[in-house]
Amino acid sequence: MKATKHDTSYPMVYRAAALEKELREGAKKPFTEIIKANVNDAQAVGQSPITFVRQVLSLVVLPELSNDSRFPEDVKKRAKEILDGCKSGSVGAYSESTGIEVICKQVAKYLELRDGVPSNWANIILTMGSSEGVQYLLSAMNEKVEGKKPGIMIPIPEHPLYSACISEFGMEQVGYYLKEEKSWSPETEELERAYREAAKICRPRAIVVINPGNPTGEILKRRNIMNVIKFAHKHNLFILADEVYQDNIYEGSKFYSFKKTIAQMGSPFSEVELASFMSCSKGYMNESGLKGGYVEVVNTDPQVISMLVKSFSVRLCSGTDGQAALYCMTNPPQPGEPSYEQFKSEKEGIFKSMAARAKMVSDGLNGIPGISCNAVQGAMCAFPQVKIPEKAVAKAKSDNKCPSTFYALQLLEKTGVYVDPGSFFSQKPGTYHFRITILSDYDKLKFILKKIKEFHLKFLEEYK
Amino acid sequence: MKATKHDTSYPMVYRAAALEKELREGAKKPFTEIIKANVNDAQAVGQSPITFVRQVLSLVVLPELSNDSRFPEDVKKRAKEILDGCKSGSVGAYSESTGIEVICKQVAKYLELRDGVPSNWANIILTMGSSEGVQYLLSAMNEKVEGKKPGIMIPIPEHPLYSACISEFGMEQVGYYLKEEKSWSPETEELERAYREAAKICRPRAIVVINPGNPTGEILKRRNIMNVIKFAHKHNLFILADEVYQDNIYEGSKFYSFKKTIAQMGSPFSEVELASFMSCSKGYMNESGLKGGYVEVVNTDPQVISMLVKSFSVRLCSGTDGQAALYCMTNPPQPGEPSYEQFKSEKEGIFKSMAARAKMVSDGLNGIPGISCNAVQGAMCAFPQVKIPEKAVAKAKSDNKCPSTFYALQLLEKTGVYVDPGSFFSQKPGTYHFRITILSDYDKLKFILKKIKEFHLKFLEEYK
Repeated sequence: MKATKHDTSYPMVYRAAALEKELREGAKKPFTEIIKANVNDAQAVGQSPITFVRQVLSLVVLPELSNDSRFPEDVKKRAKEILDGCKSGSVGAYSESTGIEVICKQVAKYLELRDGVPSNWANIILTMGSSEGVQYLLSAMNEKVEGKKPGIMIPIPEHPLYSACISEFGMEQVGYYLKEEKSWSPETEELERAYREAAKICRPRAIVVINPGNPTGEILKRRNIMNVIKFAHKHNLFILADEVYQDNIYEGSKFYSFKKTIAQMGSPFSEVELASFMSCSKGYMNESGLKGGYVEVVNTDPQVISMLVKSFSVRLCSGTDGQAALYCMTNPPQPGEPSYEQFKSEKEGIFKSMAARAKMVSDGLNGIPGISCNAVQGAMCAFPQVKIPEKAVAKAKSDNKCPSTFYALQLLEKTGVYVDPGSFFSQKPGTYHFRITILSDYDKLKFILKKIKEFHLKFLEEYK
Repeated sequence: MKATKHDTSYPMVYRAAALEKELREGAKKPFTEIIKANVNDAQAVGQSPITFVRQVLSLVVLPELSNDSRFPEDVKKRAKEILDGCKSGSVGAYSESTGIEVICKQVAKYLELRDGVPSNWANIILTMGSSEGVQYLLSAMNEKVEGKKPGIMIPIPEHPLYSACISEFGMEQVGYYLKEEKSWSPETEELERAYREAAKICRPRAIVVINPGNPTGEILKRRNIMNVIKFAHKHNLFILADEVYQDNIYEGSKFYSFKKTIAQMGSPFSEVELASFMSCSKGYMNESGLKGGYVEVVNTDPQVISMLVKSFSVRLCSGTDGQAALYCMTNPPQPGEPSYEQFKSEKEGIFKSMAARAKMVSDGLNGIPGISCNAVQGAMCAFPQVKIPEKAVAKAKSDNKCPSTFYALQLLEKTGVYVDPGSFFSQKPGTYHFRITILSDYDKLKFILKKIKEFHLKFLEEYK
């Protein structure tokens, strides 16, 4: 199985841990700490949770606090609605395998409001974060057809969740390259190329799209989405839309959901099979640790849904507190409710700051000769391309390393700044990247960008 | 895939839902509600959570409550210890893939205290309930050897989690019958028979043992455990010990862990590979909805553990609040701490009541002619054997139903009492059972037993 970021055999993790140990033991280094510029988890790097969410969660676990006048009425109301949906009024009971009914229904309402398109709550499954949904959906597609392995098309660069699952399930990974020069767009010609080649060795079954992009930070234009839908329709592919960053939209961009676009395109495209994934781990809540997520499955045979539910039922249910967080996300305070002003201010503060940091990262990186970075339109990261000098490429290869890993390891060694190399997400052959997230605070981010610039110039000098 | 209890295609679920609908629509029935005598989830049927646990959880999600004088100091201390172990002090951040370090270490301490045997915290992985641990462990064993499928030995009767996973992963299920006449014990002769037959078609790789038993309610004697360990050693099998009911011990019985027994047996048995599963879903906490669990892996090659950790890392981490609940379970209030007396009283109250109901169920069932039930020594259920008259067996077969399902469906239809038929857990051919749990409250349980008796006598009459 492919290495994951949390895996100590991954050379970056391994080396960073060794450096941290050396620092603790008093070794002299050109830096005093490892700065994790790769962290994609806002609360891990100090972002505060949304007060409303945490208040609701506290009442849900300890309902007797509802008598306390310090909790606003809308908080009490949400907590009561969640508890009323739990067996015997307790989050300590298992919920239905697909989630607490009132929360599934709330998710459906939220989606109807988002898209203006009907959403059937019976097609919504609450999951342990979005990763669980992806795992089960992929697993459900794992059947050979006419002796051929199922193939899953994934964007390159991709999120390693996909390649890890595909490899674990023994399916065929079919990469299609996003066009970096066109804001990382999926182009029909490239999709067709990838499909053509894959069809020789496997049975392509689904296409994964990550929008807003991770690690790339782009937002798909409506035209791009329509092209993917047409392509999926032509080849009878299931679309797996990873839309977990749908609330992280900067730069005046706009998010179009696959669900809405499919509906708007009308027949026959409106019949394309789709699963859309979402979670409370990103957006403004960033409740990653609570593992609340959902998948909405659209246009799928009820028998397939029923099989899917059956396989989810093996793990009984997803965590009820993650479900409760999802209820808060899909049923936030409304104007006139007592929590509204504070909620609005916290949410807007988070997005405003993220948007500023997104611009700061792309601007900063573009100010370094030999590094080019698309605008970070959404999500929480940038994926700049680095021109690595030929001599450095040769050195990396003689070390048996991908040049992007070599670069990231050198950056770590010289500055203590930890970014994930492009090889971790896969990249077009001959191009080299790294992923940096926008989540460090303003001053740290400024420092990181300065360190990257200094390092990069020296690196160019060393290998010129 | 095999039907699961939460699956609407399962005839019991399907029929119960239909009956509930008829009742709502005003249909006349010999009962006014469906009584779920199969529920294995204490809080779902009204058991209160442990105050200490919920207080800690509320502080963990809303740390500002720590200034509140109504929370005892030991509650605040636990919450602080958990938060200190979280990135940036928030449960909203992902933890390490294997769980928050301080909680893994606490689990190890708790196990050392339980067994008097060293426990290495690096061998402990915190999971989403025990089911996730089982899924990942089984999945890790899914490799063909010399062209043969891996075989997993499971007790019959079993918990359907095992058969569902084995079938989903395409492994070979190897059932060994528990000896009902000897308190559902696993007998070496039968283990050897099952192994011998299985070895012809697959490569037996692991043996699952559920202790205390589900659905059977027995507690293995130390001698039984030693026999299983010897057997596993002889055939180089990995032991998967499902010990989630280890705190639910009644009837003056004693729980022996596989870990301790292995250690006590000394070399070469002390080198047998073992994974033991536990969760907060049972015992006295019964926090099923929070999905906190762990697996301890013993005597396994560090490389295998590292592969296992890699595969767990795909889902990033288990829910942090489930992990927090596990911290409470493994670090409960101690004598002298302010929460101790209330905690002790709540915990003892729960166990006392469960023990009384366990006895009530087995006594009640044994008082019905043609039903025999082993003592419920542990866990939360009984698995009585029912002598089904030949005419009823014939009728069931003509309906294309297992006689135990036919019996349970008739019971449901005539009384509204819902029990799970033995076929759901598998049973020795020619024997028929059902599983009833001990969790309904005293009065309801009395009513249920009365209804079963009335039904059974009429059933005998009808098919005599």
